[in-house]
Amino acid sequence: MVASVIDGKKIANELHVEIRAKADALAASHGVVPGLAVVLVGEDPASAVYVRNKVKATAECGLKSFEFKLPAETSEAEVLGIVERLNKDPDVHGILVQLPLPKHIDSDKVLGLIDPDKDVDGFHPLNAGRLSVGLPGFVPCTPRGSAILIEKVQPDLSGLHAVVIGRSNIVGKPMAQLLLQKNATVTIAHSRTKDLPAVCRTADILVAAVGRPEMVKADWVKPGAIVIDVGINRITTPEGKGKLVGDVAYAECAEVAGAITPVPGGVGPMTIACLMLNTLDSAYRAAGATV
Amino acid sequence: MVASVIDGKKIANELHVEIRAKADALAASHGVVPGLAVVLVGEDPASAVYVRNKVKATAECGLKSFEFKLPAETSEAEVLGIVERLNKDPDVHGILVQLPLPKHIDSDKVLGLIDPDKDVDGFHPLNAGRLSVGLPGFVPCTPRGSAILIEKVQPDLSGLHAVVIGRSNIVGKPMAQLLLQKNATVTIAHSRTKDLPAVCRTADILVAAVGRPEMVKADWVKPGAIVIDVGINRITTPEGKGKLVGDVAYAECAEVAGAITPVPGGVGPMTIACLMLNTLDSAYRAAGATV
Repeated sequence: MVASVIDGKKIANELHVEIRAKADALAASHGVVPGLAVVLVGEDPASAVYVRNKVKATAECGLKSFEFKLPAETSEAEVLGIVERLNKDPDVHGILVQLPLPKHIDSDKVLGLIDPDKDVDGFHPLNAGRLSVGLPGFVPCTPRGSAILIEKVQPDLSGLHAVVIGRSNIVGKPMAQLLLQKNATVTIAHSRTKDLPAVCRTADILVAAVGRPEMVKADWVKPGAIVIDVGINRITTPEGKGKLVGDVAYAECAEVAGAITPVPGGVGPMTIACLMLNTLDSAYRAAGATV
Repeated sequence: MVASVIDGKKIANELHVEIRAKADALAASHGVVPGLAVVLVGEDPASAVYVRNKVKATAECGLKSFEFKLPAETSEAEVLGIVERLNKDPDVHGILVQLPLPKHIDSDKVLGLIDPDKDVDGFHPLNAGRLSVGLPGFVPCTPRGSAILIEKVQPDLSGLHAVVIGRSNIVGKPMAQLLLQKNATVTIAHSRTKDLPAVCRTADILVAAVGRPEMVKADWVKPGAIVIDVGINRITTPEGKGKLVGDVAYAECAEVAGAITPVPGGVGPMTIACLMLNTLDSAYRAAGATV
């Protein structure tokens, strides 16, 4: 079996088009343009790239972008003040504070101050709880994007066995909640799991979110399984070149899986698309409109 | 193998003694007596029994009890008003609204109004989220009690496989979170799970929380496993007598399991003990004291 490749880039682009249409519809019906504020403190080069990609996607989707690029020495009080202002600003429907923040700023304090109803990253504990109990809220972008990719190849997960490797608050745990909502039987595996390969082999849907380059091997994959690779790891090839790889040994696993996401071009673009989607949802909710 | 019986009644009584000592210590050091308010609307006979047991345990643990027994025709506004008053009352550290409420009262609205920092039932979405992301909060009483019982027979769950049958917000989901925190590999199974007996047979720890009398049979249980029976089902025996049974076919499963909770006398008493424990925790937090 050779797996079909789940083209995250293409699906994300299609989603951008849909979001743009819905954003235009909201502007026409309610005079509201969904607005996303991005706060970047300091000069972390990776963060700068992420923020640039997010701002670019915002424009593509017809959303309004509010950028705050602050010097590394900005005080915590100043950042908190900006978040408070954004919480009150009716033109802002989503607030994203790019992590990591400089060490003199308490990230939990800053993230905890974001209005849960503008928390498009879905990191606020209230949104984690809403997801858990099944109330409307914001789902973190990476698991939301991964769930859309899974749905593209398998719309009905009822009774299928999903294994999520990794139990982070940002990916593993919310991913498990989403799969459970879709009626999968869900196993959460992690660094302490005994015989991880055997656990993975029972999965109809395998989601790897551990941050270890090419950890998942072909013999961990059940033939025909859907494999979602959340990892983005920068490695150096034997030739000394830099290269991005996932948590899954792609080439060998693609020989066994039924469908698989590549890295790059799989989950990554969906994360940004879902940030746009969360912002769109937020604007619709704020306007009392139905998506 | 014949399972050792996990005596929930005895463990709950020991916990009551510990709670009483800690409540007395708080009274001595901070002049604060933990207070639990219980709101009961209407004459549901089962609810009346639960409330009586809770009030009795409150006295045993040296906590202060505030009882509100309201007639079935009490308006929603009145109940909301009482919750608001209790939210503000510094003598009240825990608020419990007994479910079910009469049909003219919106339970979600009432529960959602309870101050999350007095929500000793742990049903508020913010507390579900705190549990999920690992912040201090209130854990629902039944899973908290079940986790204590498991810990009594197996203090280190690292790498063990736990299977939770049932995905309710009150038991299944928070139970899975607790087991994950204790480093177990966790599977959440439910009505849609394919070949449930086979999934259960992989469990070192099996938690049944489905509400189906004696559903779990001996051949679902891995020899030596810890079996926690959350179910409390009233059945009629062939002789026409009423009888309480769990979700586990106790007699046959006790032949296979390593340890098992009986019904009654297993998880039930722990649920009430953990309501006391949550109230104690709340009072300590409010007083800025360390348990």
